[in-house]
Amino acid sequence: MGRLVRFSVSIDERLIEGFDALWRKRRYENRSEAIRDAIRQQLVAQEWADDEQVAGVITLLYDHHRPGLADMITDLQHHSLSYVIATTHIHLDGDNCLELIAVKGDAGGIRALADRLISLKGVKHGGLTATSTGERIV
Amino acid sequence: MGRLVRFSVSIDERLIEGFDALWRKRRYENRSEAIRDAIRQQLVAQEWADDEQVAGVITLLYDHHRPGLADMITDLQHHSLSYVIATTHIHLDGDNCLELIAVKGDAGGIRALADRLISLKGVKHGGLTATSTGERIV
Amino acid sequence: MGRLVRFSVSIDERLIEGFDALWRKRRYENRSEAIRDAIRQQLVAQEWADDEQVAGVITLLYDHHRPGLADMITDLQHHSLSYVIATTHIHLDGDNCLELIAVKGDAGGIRALADRLISLKGVKHGGLTATSTGERIV
Amino acid sequence: MGRLVRFSVSIDERLIEGFDALWRKRRYENRSEAIRDAIRQQLVAQEWADDEQVAGVITLLYDHHRPGLADMITDLQHHSLSYVIATTHIHLDGDNCLELIAVKGDAGGIRALADRLISLKGVKHGGLTATSTGERIV
Repeated sequence: MGRLVRFSVSIDERLIEGFDALWRKRRYENRSEAIRDAIRQQLVAQEWADDEQVAGVITLLYDHHRPGLADMITDLQHHSLSYVIATTHIHLDGDNCLELIAVKGDAGGIRALADRLISLKGVKHGGLTATSTGERIV
Repeated sequence: MGRLVRFSVSIDERLIEGFDALWRKRRYENRSEAIRDAIRQQLVAQEWADDEQVAGVITLLYDHHRPGLADMITDLQHHSLSYVIATTHIHLDGDNCLELIAVKGDAGGIRALADRLISLKGVKHGGLTATSTGERIV
Repeated sequence: MGRLVRFSVSIDERLIEGFDALWRKRRYENRSEAIRDAIRQQLVAQEWADDEQVAGVITLLYDHHRPGLADMITDLQHHSLSYVIATTHIHLDGDNCLELIAVKGDAGGIRALADRLISLKGVKHGGLTATSTGERIV
Repeated sequence: MGRLVRFSVSIDERLIEGFDALWRKRRYENRSEAIRDAIRQQLVAQEWADDEQVAGVITLLYDHHRPGLADMITDLQHHSLSYVIATTHIHLDGDNCLELIAVKGDAGGIRALADRLISLKGVKHGGLTATSTGERIV
């Protein structure tokens, strides 16, 4: 934790009443934490837009009966070791696997790796969740 | 304008420095206005999620040479008069038209009207911009 | 219209049944049109990602009682004449105005103009709808 | 794998040329696979919109020095055992943890659990990746 500072915001009474109802509904503990989270979300989006060092999760849904696919997914990760931190593999049912690949690196390189994995034949659906290394987002 | 109130937020010094750089880059006049805009964005998104009375813009890109299409687009708007406020038609080039339809009403009804217009054969691309009537967003 | 070609797609029966239910619900006339629209959406997104010449709509919700704001919004548009095609102004109620600004030009310049307008004090909410000039999207 | 069927799409030559360039850039093996992926993306989005049984990943970035936070995150997962499949915890650096929670269940319940976790004080950033159980997405 760095030094805590305090700043004040002037706002129309009706606007803050609407916001108070919203953060209570989302179960925030108090208004300050809801404001800080809104600020952090904008900063994380900016890190990705500026192609900075970020963290993220690549999610793959695939059919493990497809010959060679699991090997290919593993191979691609081994060729991208500088990005891949850890992988979790989940057996959803007899056919479907969900693979979660935690990644860290430049935003552009992560996007390219995600595209490469998601476009593989047999990968039914994929996604990339953008988050931060947390180094600048305190 | 309603009554102005003032509230304070405690925050890590490094987090607010990052946010200050961000709103300056986006040309906000000051930090309070950037915070208010972040609050308003969340409230507008919630109005749409809660299917409240909202405003929006349906955008259609289409080829005006397609027989019957312009008439169909006009007909559909006339059958949805309770939603449609005004329409602007722009001739982008010899083939392409851009039509902007300002709408107001329940979020679900607006979405259905947008789906109906965007799915018309000859409409190349369409979008729905979600905004607010401004009644609760001050 | 250019030359029409025809291509075929092999697909699992259950996948195409799910898609047929989806495009019927969205009121598409037939499967081909739903497929073409999915293709066009990806091409429009790519035009924006590649910073090509595109079209779009900037939407502003603002309080017209704010002194100087309407003049500032008009001024900014006059200083961006190369982008602005046409503007529609709608009186939502006694306080709230909805302004629709149709724009054309490079994606980056359009984004910067939108940021500049949306960050103005008194603009309650704003959005940028991305579409295409339609020149490459047929 | 179910029975394979084949259908054909008529399309303007320039539109399919644009799409061919796009899927090659994204490293798809062939056009059919790119079309199938576009179809699957729409079906997964619809599963979430219809509040069906889906799968997903909740991603949390948090500071493990915050007293009680890791326990709270674990407790909440234990109280949502019907949703949580598996959790992966990654130490990003001396302060920051990345936690990946694979979940399965009704879309509404998953969203509520994600909101609850993301709003916790000390969770810096969070996200929910929407994917499918793969049962209807083949």
